[in-house]
Amino acid sequence: ARSIDLAVIPGDGIGPEVVAEGLKVLSAVLPGDIKLETTAYDLGARRWHATGETLPDADLERLKAHDAILLGAIGDPSVPSGVLERGLLLKLRFAFDHYVNLRPSRLFPNTATPLAGRPDIDFVVVREGTEGLYVGNGGSMRTGTPAEVATEVSINTAYGVERVVRDAFERAAARPARKLTLVHKNNVLVHAGHLWKNTVDRIAQEYPQVSTDYLHVDAATIFFVTQPERFDVIVTDNLFGDILTDLAAAVTGGIGLAASGNINPAGTFPSMFEPVHGSAPDIAGTGKADPTATVLSVALLLRHLGHEAEAVRIEDAVSADLAERDAATPRTTAQIGDALAARVAG
Amino acid sequence: ARSIDLAVIPGDGIGPEVVAEGLKVLSAVLPGDIKLETTAYDLGARRWHATGETLPDADLERLKAHDAILLGAIGDPSVPSGVLERGLLLKLRFAFDHYVNLRPSRLFPNTATPLAGRPDIDFVVVREGTEGLYVGNGGSMRTGTPAEVATEVSINTAYGVERVVRDAFERAAARPARKLTLVHKNNVLVHAGHLWKNTVDRIAQEYPQVSTDYLHVDAATIFFVTQPERFDVIVTDNLFGDILTDLAAAVTGGIGLAASGNINPAGTFPSMFEPVHGSAPDIAGTGKADPTATVLSVALLLRHLGHEAEAVRIEDAVSADLAERDAATPRTTAQIGDALAARVAG
Ligand SMILES: CC(C)[C@H](C(=O)O)[C@@H](O)C(=O)O
Ligand SMILES: CC(C)[C@H](C(=O)O)[C@@H](O)C(=O)O
Repeated sequence: ARSIDLAVIPGDGIGPEVVAEGLKVLSAVLPGDIKLETTAYDLGARRWHATGETLPDADLERLKAHDAILLGAIGDPSVPSGVLERGLLLKLRFAFDHYVNLRPSRLFPNTATPLAGRPDIDFVVVREGTEGLYVGNGGSMRTGTPAEVATEVSINTAYGVERVVRDAFERAAARPARKLTLVHKNNVLVHAGHLWKNTVDRIAQEYPQVSTDYLHVDAATIFFVTQPERFDVIVTDNLFGDILTDLAAAVTGGIGLAASGNINPAGTFPSMFEPVHGSAPDIAGTGKADPTATVLSVALLLRHLGHEAEAVRIEDAVSADLAERDAATPRTTAQIGDALAARVAG
Repeated sequence: ARSIDLAVIPGDGIGPEVVAEGLKVLSAVLPGDIKLETTAYDLGARRWHATGETLPDADLERLKAHDAILLGAIGDPSVPSGVLERGLLLKLRFAFDHYVNLRPSRLFPNTATPLAGRPDIDFVVVREGTEGLYVGNGGSMRTGTPAEVATEVSINTAYGVERVVRDAFERAAARPARKLTLVHKNNVLVHAGHLWKNTVDRIAQEYPQVSTDYLHVDAATIFFVTQPERFDVIVTDNLFGDILTDLAAAVTGGIGLAASGNINPAGTFPSMFEPVHGSAPDIAGTGKADPTATVLSVALLLRHLGHEAEAVRIEDAVSADLAERDAATPRTTAQIGDALAARVAG
């Protein structure tokens, strides 16, 4: 498309700051003949305090019309835990059927990793985004009494598992290593685990060129720190994917570099791109936030919309910028954004 | 007690090999006036293949009479995933109400860690052992069809959460740092998360000397690799505890050193001690298994039975042995066991 109609949800804490830099880089990378139109949505803690709303139907309806959504971060200590997460962020993922939560992990040269030996890390986690323990199917009875019972139900469907597993196989088939690892806990969660494992084994027949592997989630965390180079594409459920991708971010230079896309591959609804990090209220307004994760999320956004060349330009710019970073002279959020914008334009 | 009546479940793979060394060290450390009696139970893959049984009522009944249980490892690729885990290991944990799954993590000097900078790690995870997603409350319908739905239910009770939280506060109060971190995911699993968070906040009033902290499980994995020295006592649910303790083992020198106790603090049923690692069928019979995790589990066993001095002797012996280990000249399972036995006896 020769135009991009983008919804922007800056959100809370450092969200607006990193989104500003993401948009700066996006404007800089787009050729003159691609028109960029952005519409900001006031959603998050401020809106909730002002009106009690998290994501009203009217906003959801308007959001549907855009080509894609760029989101900064959601969450503030002044709002009870879960209100904005369930009422806004997860509501968007579910309403727009973002069943592929795509989270690439790569250890860029010259970036800090807590791992000795700097392993060669380059994998992508395909996290299911619309099922599992995230469905919001739980409750409690006798709440607040010594007889309270609280439940959380993980719901997994063949429909939901098969589509994300197919997506993961497609991605694995397109990568040089062509390897897909399923992560679950099928020795304990036998019913959901059986569905996931059987689905992978069945679809694997259609992808003889892709090798497959299975790991329990606990064992997977071990390999993330001892042998992360063994991974290529990982497919896993919503909760395991949440846990593993924070760990992946930590070993590849930190949450300041981790990008993600909440993707609706069919294009029925707009996909949504966001840094993996949260709103970090403790550093909001200080200029310390690293906008790189948001900038890399913009690259995923461009790729999703078919602008592959521009996506690569951004990723190359980030690579080059990181290679020249000097930890001793930190830059502000805006300075990093400026540097990246200059690189992609140049 | 001046005698120990121990049930031993060697189990599968390297289980029998590491248990033999654990018993060797146990015999060596006990003073002459403490009588040790052991009874071996044939449970695991062999038994299941031979009889179809995982843990018959008769065995469960006999096991009840012992002072404690030492378990090697359970699991074999020839048995469908989940059969031995649910039918034997978890059945024991649930039947004997092992609600405190105690997993200490310490980076001993001279041991390999994948982390650069060798942080000072010394924390203990108190993992709930009888609730959550491990209750086996799940199922599937239209199994094997494109319309399959598979569920797993996490059940959490005030009764179950409070008792393990109390245990964790007691442990935190007895340690120098006196810090307790609750790990959960209360922004998504709001019902279970609310129960856990409220329970910790309430019991905290009774322990003003203990400082408390809360982390989402995804964020906790980040700190495990970037700042593990921040943890003292961690309390968490069954599944999060499973995941975090494998990661903890990985950063503190590997699963070959990670000990655990499945504890029934009331003493209603025997507690069970086991290495965190699995049966590792790939190295069974090669003499490559490190029995140290089992030996450290024996130390936890002795401490639980009131033999604190002997527990410390074992832990000091392991420390001293690790300090002198030379990665270039690996020893066999039995050689490590011999060396540790010699140290504790000497
Ligand atoms: C904020 C929270 C609901 C969210 C999640 O758990 O998915 C976040 O951790 C993430 O990974 O995007
Ligand atoms: C074997 C498996 C059932 C077990 C668990 O998940 O508890 C193991 O991983 C552990 O941590 O002891």
